[in-house]
Amino acid sequence: MAVDVTMDKIVSLSRRRGFVFPSSEIYGGMGSTYDYGHYGVLMKNNIRSLWFQTMVQERDDIVALDSAVILNPLVWEASGHVGGFSDPLVDCRTCKLRFRADQLEQSACGRKPSKHPGEWKECDLTEARQFNLMFQTQVGPLEDSSATAYLRPETAQGIFVNFKNVLQLARRKPPFGIAQTGKSFRNEITPGNFLFRVREFEQMEMEYFVPPADAERWYRYWVDARYDWYLKYGLRESMLRKREHSAEERSHYSSGTTDIEYLYPIGWSELEGIANRGDYDLTQHTQHSGTKLEFVDDDGTRYTPYVIEPAVSIERIFVAMLVDGYDEEVVADRERTVLRLHPAIAPVKAAILPLIGKNTDMAEKADALFQELRRRHVVEYDDSGQIGRRYRRQDEIGTPFAFTIDDQTLEDGTVTVRDRDSLAQERLPLDGVARWLGEALEKPWRTPKA
Amino acid sequence: MAVDVTMDKIVSLSRRRGFVFPSSEIYGGMGSTYDYGHYGVLMKNNIRSLWFQTMVQERDDIVALDSAVILNPLVWEASGHVGGFSDPLVDCRTCKLRFRADQLEQSACGRKPSKHPGEWKECDLTEARQFNLMFQTQVGPLEDSSATAYLRPETAQGIFVNFKNVLQLARRKPPFGIAQTGKSFRNEITPGNFLFRVREFEQMEMEYFVPPADAERWYRYWVDARYDWYLKYGLRESMLRKREHSAEERSHYSSGTTDIEYLYPIGWSELEGIANRGDYDLTQHTQHSGTKLEFVDDDGTRYTPYVIEPAVSIERIFVAMLVDGYDEEVVADRERTVLRLHPAIAPVKAAILPLIGKNTDMAEKADALFQELRRRHVVEYDDSGQIGRRYRRQDEIGTPFAFTIDDQTLEDGTVTVRDRDSLAQERLPLDGVARWLGEALEKPWRTPKA
Repeated sequence: MAVDVTMDKIVSLSRRRGFVFPSSEIYGGMGSTYDYGHYGVLMKNNIRSLWFQTMVQERDDIVALDSAVILNPLVWEASGHVGGFSDPLVDCRTCKLRFRADQLEQSACGRKPSKHPGEWKECDLTEARQFNLMFQTQVGPLEDSSATAYLRPETAQGIFVNFKNVLQLARRKPPFGIAQTGKSFRNEITPGNFLFRVREFEQMEMEYFVPPADAERWYRYWVDARYDWYLKYGLRESMLRKREHSAEERSHYSSGTTDIEYLYPIGWSELEGIANRGDYDLTQHTQHSGTKLEFVDDDGTRYTPYVIEPAVSIERIFVAMLVDGYDEEVVADRERTVLRLHPAIAPVKAAILPLIGKNTDMAEKADALFQELRRRHVVEYDDSGQIGRRYRRQDEIGTPFAFTIDDQTLEDGTVTVRDRDSLAQERLPLDGVARWLGEALEKPWRTPKA
Repeated sequence: MAVDVTMDKIVSLSRRRGFVFPSSEIYGGMGSTYDYGHYGVLMKNNIRSLWFQTMVQERDDIVALDSAVILNPLVWEASGHVGGFSDPLVDCRTCKLRFRADQLEQSACGRKPSKHPGEWKECDLTEARQFNLMFQTQVGPLEDSSATAYLRPETAQGIFVNFKNVLQLARRKPPFGIAQTGKSFRNEITPGNFLFRVREFEQMEMEYFVPPADAERWYRYWVDARYDWYLKYGLRESMLRKREHSAEERSHYSSGTTDIEYLYPIGWSELEGIANRGDYDLTQHTQHSGTKLEFVDDDGTRYTPYVIEPAVSIERIFVAMLVDGYDEEVVADRERTVLRLHPAIAPVKAAILPLIGKNTDMAEKADALFQELRRRHVVEYDDSGQIGRRYRRQDEIGTPFAFTIDDQTLEDGTVTVRDRDSLAQERLPLDGVARWLGEALEKPWRTPKA
């Protein structure tokens, strides 16, 4: 029977094994802010570098960019964020809290003991007013408003304002893309659901500039390419779907938006969005900056490219992969929790386990193997406790392979390799382990999870 | 004769080849803020991942962390940043500008036509007052001061407040370390000197927790280890020095601080700092949070570990490596600019160049090689223009190797490999290129620069 993966189970495993924990815990936390521990950092690094490898390294047509978090504030005037990037807020005169006017049905007044959603009708609410989601700050020693700046709420605008630079410096012509990863910040009124809605998050965005006539085709291309990427890195097809936004749902400038949704414990929700943004952004920045952001071809043809944007945050991929990989099963009368992560995503690629840690011959051979493997991979050495407990520790963090050095190793120079998913064990010669692991990590992988 | 590497030359090359350019340029810039182009991103990625590999992956005793940018503001009360992380400021009543009171000798009034430093004596300056360098913002929909928070001015405090988590979750005992990379923000009054002093920068910090009696020894260890790291990745010994701070210069809590300095075009300046911070941070957070941040050994011994901190920003390494690698020379009557970067640091590892781009046989062979190599490395395909011009383009971005596909390739299946530094050329069989490149990139490397 399929295991019921609740958000609680994911939060609990993350906390217990040091993937993610509430930020500033010793000071009572910092409302829906999280810090990543060792395995969380390793897993995020894998997600980021696989995205970068797919989007930049393995392509001819996409270059990388890393723009600043605090841009010239005029960027956000032009993009429409200063005027329109806001949520409607109401105050409750009873409990003095503030809530999103468009989410009242799911909220509850702080003074209502029952806290049943929908009791708002009885509450004393103010009219809704717009609350901008950009974090403001002051730059430089001046205290007047001329120094007001914003933390970027998205990385995309940093790409648009560098369009001309890249066009010139990287000698590109449409279709070509600019890719960027980095933190964005949004002053969410109701953050929550673990990492699902947080105030700081790491985006991975790519803006793909195309001739207007080809926009629809490239939009479809990127929806499919991104969907396939999630299948490649192990997400189950049954947990993924493409959902095209209706005309009412779309931003006014978008002529097409598709969400790749994942069946999170909170229900089907956006994992990644792919939008056809048209020429909206380049046109806005042309108007506001006075710099013509267009493409001029060798024959003199000039046009403002359309933009197709696949945009995702590492956090949503991170949660989807934990949920998809999480499994519980009973093996030989013992329950085990196992993260069936794609080997490329798994924070640790292999564990090296001397069966008896205090046996110096075993320890020596195990250490030599450890030193060899960690030049190329993140691997772990563990010699403490029963071997079964050590296996389960590695299962919980999703380590795909474990190499055990035992008595037979001392006799014939072979080690046991244990497969996390099938629990199959086979013996390999010690000097063939590095090559075996290198090949095993490159093989296509599909989860055995039901 | 050694080339005179000025900051102007570095800025110009960075701009010209798209490593780094002024941020928000189309809106008139954003005072001393920079965006990184394709090659800049690749080079920064290399620096970050080599640091991570050395500090985390290849060690048993250091784990990774990624804490939030906006922490609970009590963290910065405890650390002393709210009270003391400030510069003294004066206003000039003549020109209405503000300046750092401790840097007046190097500044000039906005109204003085000559702008000679030191003319301040004649100016009408206010008394100095303290200006805090942390960026402030408001979190959540509340507008009162209870919601004031700060952008972290360093990553270190995020490590200290997670000390207990890591101690428990990662099953560690001193000596052990916690490493973190990520952006920090400082509202510098006088940013400048290209990337040398910027308002947002990416830190790489590691806090190493040790028994107090061993602190001095570990402090020396880390000064040497970090110095050797720079030699390993190609910086010249003649451009590096260790400078120990005098007692007056040190922070009050530090019992020892050494800067690894690099001879930048602006003179000897801090590249990386290694400090013995004692038990100051853990003690402060214990007092302010009420959570005891100490280590309790199996035998019941308890103590507050001392902390040794090697701290550096990617930007300073980035500039040092550009300066160290920058070279100009005349080859066959032609001048070339070359970045003699360590191959592990170079943004592009190899260029694949069909001698005649329009020759379909050459193009086909070149493309096959390109597809093979880029699965493992960042490589570039270039078929446009004279071969000499293509070589020089690669020289300027520091690509260590170029593989040229020519007539002879079609006859005997060999390609020419050209070495960026020696300009030596040799022929290799096409099917041996991948292995040759893999090995060449792992060899120790020393700059031939005088």
